[in-house]
This record gives sequence, C-alpha cells and structure tokens, in this order.
Amino acid sequence: MTIKEQARAMKADSFLAMATTLKTRNLALEAIAKALDDNRTEIIKENQIDLEIAKEEKLAGPLLGRLEFDNKKIDGVITGIHDLIGLPDPIGKKLLEKELDEGLCLVRQSCPIGVIGVIFESRPDALIQISTLCLKSGNCAILKGGHEALHTNRILFRLVHDAAVKAGLPENWLFLAEARSEINELLDCHDYVDLLIPRGSNQFVQYIMNNTKIPVMGHADGICHCYVDQDADLAKAVKVVLDSKTQATSVCNATETLLVHRKILSSFLPMMKEAFDEKKVEIRGTKEIQAVIDCLPASEEDWSTEYLDLIISVKAVEDVDEAIKHINHFGSHHTDAIITENDATAEHFMNLVDSAGVYHNASTRFADGYRYGFGAEVGISTSKLHARGPVGLEGLCTYKYKLYGHDHIVADYATGVKSFHFKEL
Amino acid sequence: MTIKEQARAMKADSFLAMATTLKTRNLALEAIAKALDDNRTEIIKENQIDLEIAKEEKLAGPLLGRLEFDNKKIDGVITGIHDLIGLPDPIGKKLLEKELDEGLCLVRQSCPIGVIGVIFESRPDALIQISTLCLKSGNCAILKGGHEALHTNRILFRLVHDAAVKAGLPENWLFLAEARSEINELLDCHDYVDLLIPRGSNQFVQYIMNNTKIPVMGHADGICHCYVDQDADLAKAVKVVLDSKTQATSVCNATETLLVHRKILSSFLPMMKEAFDEKKVEIRGTKEIQAVIDCLPASEEDWSTEYLDLIISVKAVEDVDEAIKHINHFGSHHTDAIITENDATAEHFMNLVDSAGVYHNASTRFADGYRYGFGAEVGISTSKLHARGPVGLEGLCTYKYKLYGHDHIVADYATGVKSFHFKEL
Repeated sequence: MTIKEQARAMKADSFLAMATTLKTRNLALEAIAKALDDNRTEIIKENQIDLEIAKEEKLAGPLLGRLEFDNKKIDGVITGIHDLIGLPDPIGKKLLEKELDEGLCLVRQSCPIGVIGVIFESRPDALIQISTLCLKSGNCAILKGGHEALHTNRILFRLVHDAAVKAGLPENWLFLAEARSEINELLDCHDYVDLLIPRGSNQFVQYIMNNTKIPVMGHADGICHCYVDQDADLAKAVKVVLDSKTQATSVCNATETLLVHRKILSSFLPMMKEAFDEKKVEIRGTKEIQAVIDCLPASEEDWSTEYLDLIISVKAVEDVDEAIKHINHFGSHHTDAIITENDATAEHFMNLVDSAGVYHNASTRFADGYRYGFGAEVGISTSKLHARGPVGLEGLCTYKYKLYGHDHIVADYATGVKSFHFKEL
Repeated sequence: MTIKEQARAMKADSFLAMATTLKTRNLALEAIAKALDDNRTEIIKENQIDLEIAKEEKLAGPLLGRLEFDNKKIDGVITGIHDLIGLPDPIGKKLLEKELDEGLCLVRQSCPIGVIGVIFESRPDALIQISTLCLKSGNCAILKGGHEALHTNRILFRLVHDAAVKAGLPENWLFLAEARSEINELLDCHDYVDLLIPRGSNQFVQYIMNNTKIPVMGHADGICHCYVDQDADLAKAVKVVLDSKTQATSVCNATETLLVHRKILSSFLPMMKEAFDEKKVEIRGTKEIQAVIDCLPASEEDWSTEYLDLIISVKAVEDVDEAIKHINHFGSHHTDAIITENDATAEHFMNLVDSAGVYHNASTRFADGYRYGFGAEVGISTSKLHARGPVGLEGLCTYKYKLYGHDHIVADYATGVKSFHFKEL
C-alpha cells in the first residue's frame, strides 16, 4: 500500500477508533506494556543491529546514546504506559452544557482529532510514547521515525500495533512509514490526515510547514531569552541564567540571548561572566557589553540564531519595554524569562511577551510536558492556535457540539412562536 | 502604507492592545456605540451612495437588502455592542493553576491571539460585529469588506477606529483594506498576521486556504445531512427535515442531502414529498427513491454538491452505519442530524459522525453562534484545530503558560536535589 492508500484506510477506521471505550483503550495499553516486557530479548537484538550500522556509519556519540534501547529504557517506557493508563479519559469530557430552550440541550464534548501524522527523531522510545498517547486519546497515527532506528522501530511497531488490535482497536489504527521519500507522500494526504506533528531540526520543521495543506503543530526555532531587570537579585539571576543556558544545550528551551538592564551592567556582568567561564560558555556581546567584560563581538545575526551550543549573545536594554520589544521581534515565541524582585515589572513582562511560556525567576529549561506535570508530551507548540506550549493528551483532542432536541425547528424561533432561554446546566 | 507595512505597525501595537484592561476595552465599546448613535445621518448618507451605485450595477434584491444599513440595523449593532460589554472578560482567565514544587507555580491563562485578518461579505453590520469582537478580546484586526459597501465601511471604520483610540486603544489597532488586490498582499503577511478568517463563497474560502501560510479559520463547504432512522417518529422527521432544508436556503447550515433507512422508504417518502412539494423543493433521488416517489434522478455528483437552493438529494441506506459512512465521506464536517426515537442509535451516530455539530431530532439550521447563546460570532469553523463550530470571543483567544518561581533551576531536579510534587491549586 502507498502512504495515501494507508491514510485512506486509516481514515475509514479512525471513526471506529474514536468510538472505542476507555476500557478497551486501557486494556490495549496494558497489552502493549506486556508485549514489550515479554519481548525484551528480541527488541534488544534488533536494536543491536541498528547500533552496529550506526557505528559503521560513524554516528556521533550523543546520537548513539539516543538510539540505544536497552533494558533500562524499556523499563522507562513501560512505566510511562502505566502512568498513561492511570490518567483520566481525555475524550467524552463535557466542556459546556446548556439548555437553549425547553427540551433543547447543547453539549460541547471533547473527542479525538482523527488521523495524526508524526515524524520523529531517532529515539525508539519516541515511537512508544507517541503511539500510546495517540491510542489513549482515540486517535490513529502514521509514524515516520529516523532511519537509524529502522530495525528497532519495526519490531516496536509490530508489537504495539498487534497488541492493540488484539485488544479491540481497528486493524488500521497505526502505520509505520520507513522510507524518507514517504514524508513527501504524507504531506500530500490532506484529505485523510488531520494534523501533522514534526519533530526535528528547525530546517526540517520549516520544510514541513511550507509544503503541506495539513495543519502542523510544533516549533521550528527555539530562541529563548532571559532578561535581567534592574530590580533583580543578582546572585539569583546568575543561578537562573546559568541553568537556562547550560543545564542542557542542544534543546529548544535553552536560552540563547541574555538581555541586561543598562543600570546593572557593571555590577551584574562580571559575576555572570565568572559563572559562564567556569562552564566554558562563549559570550558574544555588543560594544556596550564588551566595554564591561572581555567577550567576542555580537553581530545583528546573533539575535536570530539558535546556537544549541555553549554560546550566548548578550545585549543591554534601557528598560523592561525594550526587552519585551527585542523578544517579540527576534524571539521564536517559545519560552522567555524575567529575573526581577519587582512583581509589577514581572507581570508587565509576562503579559506583553508573546510567547507560549513566560517565566518569572525560573529557568527557561522548565518548558517541558513532564516538568509541567502533563505526563508525556508529543511536542512543544509555538503556534497560537489549538495547543500552545507542551502538548500532551489534551492537545490531541478537539471537540464537537452535540444538540439534543425533540423535533425542534428554527422556524419557530424565527417567527417568534418560541424563544431561547439559554440556561447553563 | 502598504498592507504589509500596516500589518507590521499593527503587530508592534498589538502587544499594547493585549495589555489593555477590561475597563478600557469596555469604555472603547461604549464610545463606539455612542459614535454610531451620534452619526446616524452621515452613516445613512454614505450607505445611500453605496445603494445607488449597487442599483446602477443591477445588484440582486437580496444583496441590496444585506447592503442596506438603515436606522433599524444601526439599532441592531448598538444593541449588539451593549450585549458585548456585558460579557465577562475573555482574556486573563486562569485555565489551569498548579504548584509544581514549593514556590514554583504554573498558570495557564487565556490571552489574545494578536493580529487577525478578516475578509467579509457586503454587510456593513459585519464590520461592526467583527471589529468589536476583536476589540473585546484584545486583538487587533485588518478588515477587508465587500467593495459594494465601500462608502459605508469607510465611515463605519473611521467612527469605530477613532472612538476606540480616544478611549485608550493603540493607534494601529484597526485597519481597513479597500482594494481587492490587497487580499493577496494580506495573504503574504505571515510574519505579522496570526489568523485569517475568510467569509464568503466556498471557492473564495478555498482560495484563501490554498494561498497563505497564515492559519485560516472558517469553512468552505456546508454540505449538511439529515438521516431519518427506522425508529424515527415520521411526522417529527418531516417537520425537522423540512426546516433543515427550507427555513433558509442560501446558508451553510441548510441540509443538502437526506438519507433514509431502507425499511421506512414507503411509509416516510410520500409524506416527505408532500411537504417538499408544498415548499417547491426539487427532489433528486437514486433509482431506489424514484421507485417510491416521483422525483428527478440523483447523480454521484449530487452527494458532493452544496445547492444553497430549494433542491435536496435523497438516498436510501441499509442502517445507521451506512449513513455515518456516507456523511463522513461526502459531508463537509459542518452539521449533521439524525431523526430517531432510539437514543442508543442517536448516540452512536453522534459519536461516529465527524462533524462540528451532530444533532438528535433537531434542525441543522440551529448551527449558529446566536442560537448557541454565544452572542455574536465571527464565523463557523469546520477545521478541527482550535475553535470548531460557531466561533465567538473564546475562539479569538489563545493561552500562555506563566511560571512563577523563586530562582528555581532545572539542574536541581535533574540531579535529584529537588523533586516535583504537582499540586492542583
């Protein structure tokens, strides 16, 4: 079957998946956890094949680490599945209930989105997380994983798919696309696929966004900022900025630019530089910054660059409003923090910065579904429609309006025979 | 200024509009209502110019009726503005509040989307409704109205814009685009415009959706269905189907296709035909339908046609599942109704039909923001992401995550020094 044929078949089955009960979906999740547990040896054997090929192809160390799927990682995904089973049903929730008139009731109820295409990086645990989140939320999914994980993904897909079908999910609830060429085929399936979630490099996500009519949820850039205000506690500021930049670097929620209130340049920058030097962070500053501390020059390009590395750009601002303007102009609307002891300034910053996450005295690295207590996430969204920020089960649902009548017709209201009374129930 | 320059200026001012208080926004709405009331003579004079040109250009009667903006219509929009003032603030609502750890609090708060582009038909009241809905929700808007309403729109825009600016809204909160060529310019403003809401013909909305990177909210087709089940009360069915088809015809929520359970063809169709005949509805049926009642033949094309006229296509189905399949395949995911006395069948239909509105024993014509009790609407959405169905104030808002810390850093949680406790507040 081509991807389009698969997507068409999945669309037809998606209405059955939508109608599965919570019990069926949870039983399927339990069956998946058991299948993974029962087949550890085979999974690890297939993963070894991928690892050997990757070593031959001289894949970098951190990538090899992500690709490896050992007993500890299998334990992790099984725990994740049990957590997911414990979560309440995201579908069928009554979000609004209103009597429009005697015997005419309107209910807004959460329901699955339908068919979701997810393109993800070479972490085999991602396949399990994404497919089980889609299952719990009554959605069907077409998965495309990194080619480095080909053998691991193939066995994981087979185990997850078959266990769920045995538990009552429709045959076409999950597909695995293996060839890179199939991505373009998938982008053309707007008649059958309701949502695409691409994960990966900035360039890759941008390519997806520019080449499909299917709605895309995700983020391309992650250019996050810390703004250190004149009313900041400077020791706290050093601590929060250092964590925002260095706790991890190749991640979307790491800070790339530091903005500092002009009045505290000479007191704050030397402290900050000492901390950065210790962690071997390269500093790129404007002339004004270079006048206070020894650092490389920053160019205009730096403000739009996601380093994903131990590099930070630094700039002085006149006040919180200039910081807000800089962030709204150069940022990627992901996550931005203010460090200040002045609550009014903080609230002003948080209201005017147009990002999915706005933080007061906390590291930008907190932007993550797990740290928000949402359980697993399918990704972080910087678009403003639908889900924004870390996206978990709720972001995989939409709603529909159910209207229950007793042969109610509009003519009666148009002619004034009847009138609405709108009572919240 | 070109549209792009206007959009850039508006984007910069949109952060100020976002930060306006409810008091300022309500005062602006009051000032707008007063300005409309104070300038009735001038408004009607400008509207007369549009009406005269339209008559010269031989505009059809119903279009002239929509274009006319008399004292009664001015009363209507002023009442609408007062209703809007009475509604609670859609922005700043706490949608979630959680303590992640001691002193680390996460709040999900509703906020404006930012800059919204609305392209609407030749009803001057639409300009007032849309601009005031955007104002109440803290958004800025670029409006493009129908060219037939040029003079009326120009004076209404000036009154609405100026009254709001005097009340404290930023200068660039509202723009009016007048030339049709500016629509294509607007479609290219993805760096500044967050959302497009096109209203108009199927073809026009489709054109917008296919020619912009900006997210689009709306609906192209409105192919709605009524399914009359074997367990229907036939007299009720006739009443509901007739209203769904004929209460108004040139509207997106009018029914275009009637599906009838095979078992009740001979009892139901003659009753239905009598009612249709009285209203001069043209019936197009399959051979199976033609064997029972006298009607024109239906072709395959009919199932995908939005007549917007006194025409209905009719088809027999084996059971509720065949009806569901037909609707999900040929429908436009707008609004579909089942007529049955069997609640279990109804619930099955409502869960499996993948539409914004699914109705039991009620006319499809109820799909409307006013009838749902939402106040005014900016449109009806058939997309599944963000807002679905009639879209009012809530659909003009997104949310952001605010995180309040006390120099919290992720390193403490990664190394196990601290751990999250996730308490709902």
